[in-house]
Amino acid sequence: MKLVRFQTEAKEKIGLINDDIVQEISLSFLDALNSDDLSNFAEKSYKLNQIQIKPPTYPSKIICVGLNYQDHAQELNMEIPEEPVIFMKPPTSVIGHLDNIIYPSSSIQVDYEVELAVIISKKAKNIKKTDFNEFIGGYTILNDVTARDLQSKDIQWTRAKSFDTFCPIGPCIETDLDPNNLKISLKLNGKLKQKSNTRNMIFSIGKLLEFISNIMTLNPGDIIATGTPPGVGPMNRGDVVQANIEDIGVLENNIK
Amino acid sequence: MKLVRFQTEAKEKIGLINDDIVQEISLSFLDALNSDDLSNFAEKSYKLNQIQIKPPTYPSKIICVGLNYQDHAQELNMEIPEEPVIFMKPPTSVIGHLDNIIYPSSSIQVDYEVELAVIISKKAKNIKKTDFNEFIGGYTILNDVTARDLQSKDIQWTRAKSFDTFCPIGPCIETDLDPNNLKISLKLNGKLKQKSNTRNMIFSIGKLLEFISNIMTLNPGDIIATGTPPGVGPMNRGDVVQANIEDIGVLENNIK
Repeated sequence: MKLVRFQTEAKEKIGLINDDIVQEISLSFLDALNSDDLSNFAEKSYKLNQIQIKPPTYPSKIICVGLNYQDHAQELNMEIPEEPVIFMKPPTSVIGHLDNIIYPSSSIQVDYEVELAVIISKKAKNIKKTDFNEFIGGYTILNDVTARDLQSKDIQWTRAKSFDTFCPIGPCIETDLDPNNLKISLKLNGKLKQKSNTRNMIFSIGKLLEFISNIMTLNPGDIIATGTPPGVGPMNRGDVVQANIEDIGVLENNIK
Repeated sequence: MKLVRFQTEAKEKIGLINDDIVQEISLSFLDALNSDDLSNFAEKSYKLNQIQIKPPTYPSKIICVGLNYQDHAQELNMEIPEEPVIFMKPPTSVIGHLDNIIYPSSSIQVDYEVELAVIISKKAKNIKKTDFNEFIGGYTILNDVTARDLQSKDIQWTRAKSFDTFCPIGPCIETDLDPNNLKISLKLNGKLKQKSNTRNMIFSIGKLLEFISNIMTLNPGDIIATGTPPGVGPMNRGDVVQANIEDIGVLENNIK
């Protein structure tokens, strides 16, 4: 099922999305994320054009993995790492589907990076890679927007990755998904820029969860962004960026 | 005034600390952080040995500044940066005064780093350095615990800085403090290891707030850790580490 957060009038709600119909459900976000069947909790339905889609989760942490596609590491002339390289984006960088990415005045190159994002459903510490499915509520699309010039200049990637609006996520959380063989792509102004398959990941999602939960406790709603495939490149003010993952949908944002 | 969070029985409370007396106050943490006078909100008093001190804030973000003391940059043979180098620690790394720092099995060198930590009291975005005082509720002590071997090995510092328990803060928030001329020091097992003064900072607190709030929105309760002076070094299991900042107090933790 495809879980969304949405807003009608002033109040934020959660629901299930099916084509252009969103059905409100009367459960908390975390209860919904941990339920297999939500049919008993169905309430009012809305057409997609009557509502505003919100970020599907408000994470306390966003842990990102660098260089996790073989072909992207080659593209950057970087060696394939022995262990995952991790970094964080702050919760304040999160925006939703159709929200604007704000181009910061302190950068002259802002890049897109489409990524498959894991949504944690249960507190996870020191988990084994074979148990990873127990701790995942579903998957969404994440655009790891990056000020490439600042990333090259700084020793650390934090500034380049942390501007407000630099973490579009959505449009929904797909709760039933095999993450190991999904087409992943990105279009800028309708032109295909990134195209790969999640089977090209260097470290599996189980391995990433084991590695990260060995360092820090993951909380429900937290995000793990699993790295981007080749083809990263710059966006300009006025551009439209569409990140696409098979069986999840399209995450679209304008650059402003 | 010196604001603390503390616990008696099961419930967490906030209060004012004065020598070994803690006076409970009937306000929310954020209201207390933004009040000049709390005398009307005083409730029951406790002796320090009757209660457990908790972390003085639960931040949504911890933004740290690397290399912000001239003498520490020299010690590491690193050039003085033109702009602040920032990185983040996750909220899950926070512990309080007298809590244990857990030595992770994946590291063989875990270092202490005493730092002056700024507590944000109001939502701050694009602020000017001259206005910084408006957005600061007070100051506490932070030990930026770092797995130095993993920091050297990884490209990014995130793993080295992010283990659970790697961010002791406390014991209190001092709300009335001039941060520009404070003795800052650290003792390991009673032996002086770090000793400097906050006047040796490269970037002032106003400058740091301007720089960071230009990147991301800071929220009430968030922490900015302002960098460590010279003398960083390793701790071992069984050690006692005491971080000291003039007019704030002593933050003590055991390594386990």
